[in-house]
Amino acid sequence: MSVTKEEIITFARQYDPQPMHVDPSAAGFSIYGGLIASGWQTVSLLMRLIVTSLLVDSTSLGSPGVDELRWPLPVRPGDTLSGHMLVLEARPSNSRPTMGIVRWRGELRNQHGQLVLTLVGTNFFGRRTAER
Amino acid sequence: MSVTKEEIITFARQYDPQPMHVDPSAAGFSIYGGLIASGWQTVSLLMRLIVTSLLVDSTSLGSPGVDELRWPLPVRPGDTLSGHMLVLEARPSNSRPTMGIVRWRGELRNQHGQLVLTLVGTNFFGRRTAER
Repeated sequence: MSVTKEEIITFARQYDPQPMHVDPSAAGFSIYGGLIASGWQTVSLLMRLIVTSLLVDSTSLGSPGVDELRWPLPVRPGDTLSGHMLVLEARPSNSRPTMGIVRWRGELRNQHGQLVLTLVGTNFFGRRTAER
Repeated sequence: MSVTKEEIITFARQYDPQPMHVDPSAAGFSIYGGLIASGWQTVSLLMRLIVTSLLVDSTSLGSPGVDELRWPLPVRPGDTLSGHMLVLEARPSNSRPTMGIVRWRGELRNQHGQLVLTLVGTNFFGRRTAER
């Protein structure tokens, strides 16, 4: 999954119009030394990867939230990102037995193998068999 | 800040193409009973509010991450959102004295006063005076 300068600027103009995300020349003078993606775009790119490779064929019912979202390094134009998910816990909901709750750790790395995003997510799914 | 059906679908087609976010009729049969915004769009809308009303005139240097991001209720087409920030802590960086670190709690509410998003963020800023 590659990220272009145009995608970075388009997202940031709408949702995070800070100079480091929308203005390549101003970004060049920032502590980042050049244009970087909004962290909210980076996490949205992980979401796209998860939806298209996993949730599309699932009984996904949404998410109550995420924890420990971190951006250890910036994403720059031309970076190629790859994602990884690790299931930490999967259990039936106590209050809604037809629903399962999955906790997972997600990460994105750039083409140099460097971590650019980590998080711990929680998601709800419909269960194949409901124990009542 | 209002959210339209078109904005919800446009964002979700690119970043979170689950039926509840992109397909109004499929969403009608979901547990949400209609189209809802991707949670990543909701938090991006809070970011836009923060950038345009506060960070635009600041020495913002980016963020290492956020914690306890929660979506207690979905955002629906036509909702009008308002945001609130509370500074929890502001201190100089130990390793970089010219930089300050601010921890804050953010929230978004809909037109009924209901919370639709909460988070605890950390942001870096340049300091007006650097104590060395």
